[in-house]
Amino acid sequence: MLSNFKVVLVETSHPGNIGAVARAMKNMGMNQLRLVTPKYFPHADATARASGADDVLKIASIHDSLSEAIADCQIVLGASARDRTISWPSVTARECAEKWVDVAGGANIALVFGRENSGLKNHELDLCQYLLRIPCNAEYSSLNLAAAVQVVCYELFVASGRQYASSIGDRGEESLATAEQMEGFYLHLQQTMADIGFLQPERSKSIMRRLRRVFNRAWLDTKELDILRGILRFSQNHNLK
Amino acid sequence: MLSNFKVVLVETSHPGNIGAVARAMKNMGMNQLRLVTPKYFPHADATARASGADDVLKIASIHDSLSEAIADCQIVLGASARDRTISWPSVTARECAEKWVDVAGGANIALVFGRENSGLKNHELDLCQYLLRIPCNAEYSSLNLAAAVQVVCYELFVASGRQYASSIGDRGEESLATAEQMEGFYLHLQQTMADIGFLQPERSKSIMRRLRRVFNRAWLDTKELDILRGILRFSQNHNLK
Repeated sequence: MLSNFKVVLVETSHPGNIGAVARAMKNMGMNQLRLVTPKYFPHADATARASGADDVLKIASIHDSLSEAIADCQIVLGASARDRTISWPSVTARECAEKWVDVAGGANIALVFGRENSGLKNHELDLCQYLLRIPCNAEYSSLNLAAAVQVVCYELFVASGRQYASSIGDRGEESLATAEQMEGFYLHLQQTMADIGFLQPERSKSIMRRLRRVFNRAWLDTKELDILRGILRFSQNHNLK
Repeated sequence: MLSNFKVVLVETSHPGNIGAVARAMKNMGMNQLRLVTPKYFPHADATARASGADDVLKIASIHDSLSEAIADCQIVLGASARDRTISWPSVTARECAEKWVDVAGGANIALVFGRENSGLKNHELDLCQYLLRIPCNAEYSSLNLAAAVQVVCYELFVASGRQYASSIGDRGEESLATAEQMEGFYLHLQQTMADIGFLQPERSKSIMRRLRRVFNRAWLDTKELDILRGILRFSQNHNLK
């Protein structure tokens, strides 16, 4: 799906980080990994940290230079935390995703990540059209390599799916209670509170208003309504049997 | 800035992950870390992986139970990759950030992350009002613990830098009930249902889970909680005077 996006790691020191990057990529549906002169690869630590994403490691390509690794890419972004003396044009991870996830079908896009300690050198950034920035704490801005890749791949995945389909204020499985059913419930609730001696008539109005707000916020479904009315019935009959 | 957001790790096995989480948090300007019965902590691996975020580890609190760790939190989200048999209400990491980064000033918000291998158990999710979901590859959905925390904290950081006019529906005038107060209410509710003969032990679990969903959705404030507990008291004592 996001196969036109190539994650390029330059001179990674710790093979464990390469494995963690592979896992982060696969979690977000990506598998195109390119390694520029990694210090150790393949390596047991890489396989261990990949934990299930070793298929990404298996097809990873190894390159002698960054220019070779990005040769077939039309758009090249270099991840950078530091501010540079010369200002490169820069995009955030989200801007990158929203800008290019759609053109990905037509172009190869390289996401270049530098060394764990020193990032990318300026002559490497010269090969990039944009700085890729991850918004973060200015006082502590160096993300772990795999964490940086995770955030960027996550943004790409979200932009590619645009699936914000999730239900805040959840609904039960049953159909929502109708206004009529809710009115029946409120009447039953009011009667029950009178029966158990909780409701003094003078406070009745304000209490009921508060309770209506509570249960209206809850968006009861019919099954939940049945349960609550069952509880009311039992408290009405409590010790009257 | 995001100090009202508490990252809660439940029974973490690998101390290195705790360190990586601390780093991920500090990268995004967060430092409130709570550990529920970690297997090893403090530990050299945690300090090593924190690489500069050991100040977050230093102030991390350790707890004997999840309920203790979230006792002072009004909003509790449990991270989950698996689909659950009964559907909890769920929000994505981005929805969480956009909804709650603004109310953070007024409420403590717990972000609960489970074990590396098995996540959170259902009885732990019972203490959560929402499932916290990170959109990802359905065929390979288990993110590394620190990677999951990184994505969620990143979304919070990005959202905190923006102005969202987000109000979470209607609220009572009083302050929101804390998790501890809600647990007290649920205990009282369960006891009352037993007293009035409504609750058969064998159905108790599923009924209570449904009722938790109802009242968690309602976002009770303390005054509303008092009223409901008053009703419970009266139905318990009904005709026993």
